Amino acid sequence: MTSDQDNIKTRAAIIGCTGYTGYHLVDLLLRHPAAELTYLASHRDVLPDLRDEFPALLGRLDADVAQTRPIDFDAIAEEADVAFLGLPHKAAMAYVPQLLDAGLRVIDLSADYRLTDQALYEKVYDVEHDDPANLSDAVYGIPELFRKDLPGATLVANPGCYPTAAALAIAPLLSHSLVKTDRIVINAASGITGAGKSPKANLHFPEANQGYHAYGAIGGHRHQPEIGQTLSRIAGHAVEPLFVPHLLPVDRGILETIYLEPSDPDVTEEDLIDAFVDAYSDEPFVRLRESPPNIKHVVGTNFCDLSVRLATVGETKTVVVFAAEDNMIKGASGQAIQNMNAVFELDETLGLL
Amino acid sequence: MTSDQDNIKTRAAIIGCTGYTGYHLVDLLLRHPAAELTYLASHRDVLPDLRDEFPALLGRLDADVAQTRPIDFDAIAEEADVAFLGLPHKAAMAYVPQLLDAGLRVIDLSADYRLTDQALYEKVYDVEHDDPANLSDAVYGIPELFRKDLPGATLVANPGCYPTAAALAIAPLLSHSLVKTDRIVINAASGITGAGKSPKANLHFPEANQGYHAYGAIGGHRHQPEIGQTLSRIAGHAVEPLFVPHLLPVDRGILETIYLEPSDPDVTEEDLIDAFVDAYSDEPFVRLRESPPNIKHVVGTNFCDLSVRLATVGETKTVVVFAAEDNMIKGASGQAIQNMNAVFELDETLGLL
Amino acid sequence: MTSDQDNIKTRAAIIGCTGYTGYHLVDLLLRHPAAELTYLASHRDVLPDLRDEFPALLGRLDADVAQTRPIDFDAIAEEADVAFLGLPHKAAMAYVPQLLDAGLRVIDLSADYRLTDQALYEKVYDVEHDDPANLSDAVYGIPELFRKDLPGATLVANPGCYPTAAALAIAPLLSHSLVKTDRIVINAASGITGAGKSPKANLHFPEANQGYHAYGAIGGHRHQPEIGQTLSRIAGHAVEPLFVPHLLPVDRGILETIYLEPSDPDVTEEDLIDAFVDAYSDEPFVRLRESPPNIKHVVGTNFCDLSVRLATVGETKTVVVFAAEDNMIKGASGQAIQNMNAVFELDETLGLL
Amino acid sequence: MTSDQDNIKTRAAIIGCTGYTGYHLVDLLLRHPAAELTYLASHRDVLPDLRDEFPALLGRLDADVAQTRPIDFDAIAEEADVAFLGLPHKAAMAYVPQLLDAGLRVIDLSADYRLTDQALYEKVYDVEHDDPANLSDAVYGIPELFRKDLPGATLVANPGCYPTAAALAIAPLLSHSLVKTDRIVINAASGITGAGKSPKANLHFPEANQGYHAYGAIGGHRHQPEIGQTLSRIAGHAVEPLFVPHLLPVDRGILETIYLEPSDPDVTEEDLIDAFVDAYSDEPFVRLRESPPNIKHVVGTNFCDLSVRLATVGETKTVVVFAAEDNMIKGASGQAIQNMNAVFELDETLGLL
Repeated sequence: MTSDQDNIKTRAAIIGCTGYTGYHLVDLLLRHPAAELTYLASHRDVLPDLRDEFPALLGRLDADVAQTRPIDFDAIAEEADVAFLGLPHKAAMAYVPQLLDAGLRVIDLSADYRLTDQALYEKVYDVEHDDPANLSDAVYGIPELFRKDLPGATLVANPGCYPTAAALAIAPLLSHSLVKTDRIVINAASGITGAGKSPKANLHFPEANQGYHAYGAIGGHRHQPEIGQTLSRIAGHAVEPLFVPHLLPVDRGILETIYLEPSDPDVTEEDLIDAFVDAYSDEPFVRLRESPPNIKHVVGTNFCDLSVRLATVGETKTVVVFAAEDNMIKGASGQAIQNMNAVFELDETLGLL
Repeated sequence: MTSDQDNIKTRAAIIGCTGYTGYHLVDLLLRHPAAELTYLASHRDVLPDLRDEFPALLGRLDADVAQTRPIDFDAIAEEADVAFLGLPHKAAMAYVPQLLDAGLRVIDLSADYRLTDQALYEKVYDVEHDDPANLSDAVYGIPELFRKDLPGATLVANPGCYPTAAALAIAPLLSHSLVKTDRIVINAASGITGAGKSPKANLHFPEANQGYHAYGAIGGHRHQPEIGQTLSRIAGHAVEPLFVPHLLPVDRGILETIYLEPSDPDVTEEDLIDAFVDAYSDEPFVRLRESPPNIKHVVGTNFCDLSVRLATVGETKTVVVFAAEDNMIKGASGQAIQNMNAVFELDETLGLL
Repeated sequence: MTSDQDNIKTRAAIIGCTGYTGYHLVDLLLRHPAAELTYLASHRDVLPDLRDEFPALLGRLDADVAQTRPIDFDAIAEEADVAFLGLPHKAAMAYVPQLLDAGLRVIDLSADYRLTDQALYEKVYDVEHDDPANLSDAVYGIPELFRKDLPGATLVANPGCYPTAAALAIAPLLSHSLVKTDRIVINAASGITGAGKSPKANLHFPEANQGYHAYGAIGGHRHQPEIGQTLSRIAGHAVEPLFVPHLLPVDRGILETIYLEPSDPDVTEEDLIDAFVDAYSDEPFVRLRESPPNIKHVVGTNFCDLSVRLATVGETKTVVVFAAEDNMIKGASGQAIQNMNAVFELDETLGLL
Repeated sequence: MTSDQDNIKTRAAIIGCTGYTGYHLVDLLLRHPAAELTYLASHRDVLPDLRDEFPALLGRLDADVAQTRPIDFDAIAEEADVAFLGLPHKAAMAYVPQLLDAGLRVIDLSADYRLTDQALYEKVYDVEHDDPANLSDAVYGIPELFRKDLPGATLVANPGCYPTAAALAIAPLLSHSLVKTDRIVINAASGITGAGKSPKANLHFPEANQGYHAYGAIGGHRHQPEIGQTLSRIAGHAVEPLFVPHLLPVDRGILETIYLEPSDPDVTEEDLIDAFVDAYSDEPFVRLRESPPNIKHVVGTNFCDLSVRLATVGETKTVVVFAAEDNMIKGASGQAIQNMNAVFELDETLGLL
């Protein structure tokens, strides 16, 4: 690379980099041909070297970048064009206004700006929203569905892992009015990185290994309102699916198996497939498959693999959609990079194929 | 044990013992206080010592029993009271008539006598049924649902793994008329022993490990008619659920997450739980749980763990039932032992707790 | 069972039952035909129902036993003949004198009575020994090696998981003087239950899953002196092996691969095998194998599988011994039951095959 | 990228691309900034589209490249500068002469050109060597040890997975004369991709999952002579280590734990570390670690992580070296790319960090 090319690289900071999404942001930015990781910030009292947190980064991350620094808005703004927020829900919104004021583009991986309805956010997360002003300006970043909002956006709410797969899986059916919307069932399963990096009794290896179970309040998971918001936006009316997540004994990967009732009893499987081809044939990160997708084939990639089937049992027809993604990539850090690419009007696939 | 007690032990033969269900029958019979394994038969040309097939059995199985013998009906009848058939579907029915003629009780773990409708069997398994005479006499062995058929039965069709969990999970709702029956969805996941012992490309360790996906014809799995038959028998009218199986990267365990529409919009979760308590409070092998069951807690046991919830999203109520079992135990060999206990009027829990 | 038979059952208490070894003691005692679990004691402030700690026990453990009780020596002595101690190292010795005084036989699964050299114990565990009086009376319970000490013993120090496998693997070579003793290398690998039930950052599922590494101070693991003590006792002179443990991404199972230099350069593999046959041909829980043993075939059993080979590379001969066991069974709770059987002069295999 | 830059990209063909090493070559070449994958060849009768063999490649590999073509030497030479051979041992040497004659650089991932001693090759692989002429010219490609041989080389023998880790782990000790060479023990463990893509009974998921065991003839694995050859070359005299491989229940990763006797009893751990720092401080793909390395931290990377310790037990000192690598990357396809970079005098890290 010539220094001319270096000059035009997008400079990226990560605030809250010690979790799994932080790790994957670093990993992806290190491979990105048009972006450069310049600043790692932590809100810990003792600022870690990120190579101690993630031994896999040794030899990839230079010492001066690896050493995390305080969340100093001016310093970050001086060294970076974009700030990724990998902070926990509720903590992110405490920093967003100053980051925006300092002139940074912000891509927030927390839930703080995902729900446009402030009251709903406050109910679901049981906390007051500190930054309603920016809430209304935040762009919900699923490029395949809402691409036009992204170029030049200042604040991107990076979607949740489950909601990304659900939205991509259901959107073509809604936009083509192929399904009824009152009894959508999303049976979901996720690898355990989705639960974060802090050790917990039920995620201790001998407890989680070779296990499988549903978790959370059935019908009450936090991702359900986010999924509902996106589906409602696409459908043009309120859609509230039932979302039931399960924990898979794997590190990474989400599979959602989604059951819907066709709106027209004479619908054919070809009609369904046509809607997906229409929606995604030009999308670089959505792969339509004939066979049900396997999380094994998406882990480590930014792809969301989809397959749609019409199941007929007796007289009853059911639309079944399968969606697979890597919860850490298309479900978090990869989509964040894709959003960065879109915001800065780069080729969306840069650093992601 | 005194020799008097030994004399009254039920003597068991296993025909087709080199598969996983055969192994578990052996394992359970070796621990059974009132049964004795006397004869292992194989239809292979070269008769294996079962300790070579299953190195875990070394030191548990005596040499004279471990050496498999031919399928000689008279010899088996001389040494055994009951014959377990661990043969593949379609192969089992070739032996059942002679085994019955020789005076043995037969517990067949294949699918050959599960479907009472001969035409349906022939369509689903794409083969003519060789033994329609006995088909109509076979008892479908889920003790919790059809216990009265078992004492003294001569031929027991041991249910499939998925159908056992589905039947136990849905029966109380049907018998109490709590759900509509036209859109039942059974989202199922099984460990890989369910696919048998023969190596296959997609079950090669590096292909299956850390993967997860649906498989089979969506809406067309062979277990769907068996599930439908049981549900219809309980409901008193035709019930055809949608059954979608997935493959879990674990050895053993099935979890079914079942979605049903309540028949009465005013139903409460307590109503649902009452139905399950009513059905199973005295059952030794059904455990009702408040939390969604985990396959980790049933593997190695004959339990089926159930949990029922009423999920409300917006105005829509959905009954969600979770059922977990070990596909090899309650889903196969354990239930076969439980059926043997019932046939011979022993305590059903013998050798299984 | 007649009530006469019940009367002669050995009554067992478990003190410290909320860890993994406690769980397996319960599991094994529930299946034991000549023992009865009567008392579960915990030193927690809030006394748990053990079925909440271990959901797998629901339906197997009666409510009155499942409810843990305080460590009340008199109450325990009234209801039990033997007390198993599943407490952490250092905590166990605080209770042993009173339990012995109350007339109980004690089988201690901690390390507190394993090292006969008080000073060595205090150095290795960095704590003063509170009960040196009983230390010298404790019997080190590996029945295959020290069987004659067990009948009627009042205090049994149940060996560590790694030391059991190492002792069984090396003893025949020492007792037949087949190897030099100055450079014994024990390369060991254990499943993660060996690290206990408390969640830790490095044992969080996404950190441990699909990983593999050595751990602990190389040459300084706490089990090294215990292994050395046993080997020295058998050899009749000081033997100090190098022990290097690794963590396997599995729940259970230990494999030790042990490298030794033959004392006679003309030794043959047959000589080695003869020594093992001589030592173990009548042992119910040691299986000699031609192929290297697999942890898969011992997990869930009380077996220790051994295989010995003479490897020749160029002019150099090396004795290689492989030893596999379930760290939770032969390496802990199973051996404790075997020791109980031996102490009470029952058939050693009762409840364990 | 401008078309000028495209013009100077190294054009790569892969002959034998349907195995795991083929997949990883494709994956790495697709990310490589200075190389281009132009030709995929298969020796199958029915030429597959590689995206059907590896569903993960859908969306990454263009249709015209994905469709495999016959092994046509002229066509390959016209479209490529370098040919990677991912064929099985024994098959590769049938093609190498023609590929070289056609003007291609060849990087052979099979064992056919690794052993410089033809007679030894023929003994170990039990086949005549068809191409002794090129055998003597082949360069053994471990850049860290034999870098000067690589620029401009026409035929590179890409090392085995186990031998790469062993060589990197032991070389500094030999070159600094820190260890005796008559009793080197290499205790190795590999993930299951190392056994290839063809399903086998012992690698069927339920057989391999949660298992762990040694395999192969103890002291007779095919990789032992290759390791011996490299160690002998570095030591300047014959060195024949004992190599004992084990199978880990993971997809990828090798850990070798190596035991050596120090040549000087007064050696210190610092002396050992100094030798490693001296050897590798400037190497981009060797990471020296204080803690024993974990395969988890190298999987997916081209790193080999090393840690050296001096273990003292009683009077006995042992040098213990730990080496971790991804058997598919540094142990196969990644090292092949590194070798390609070196042959074409590109930055060795291109496409690999």
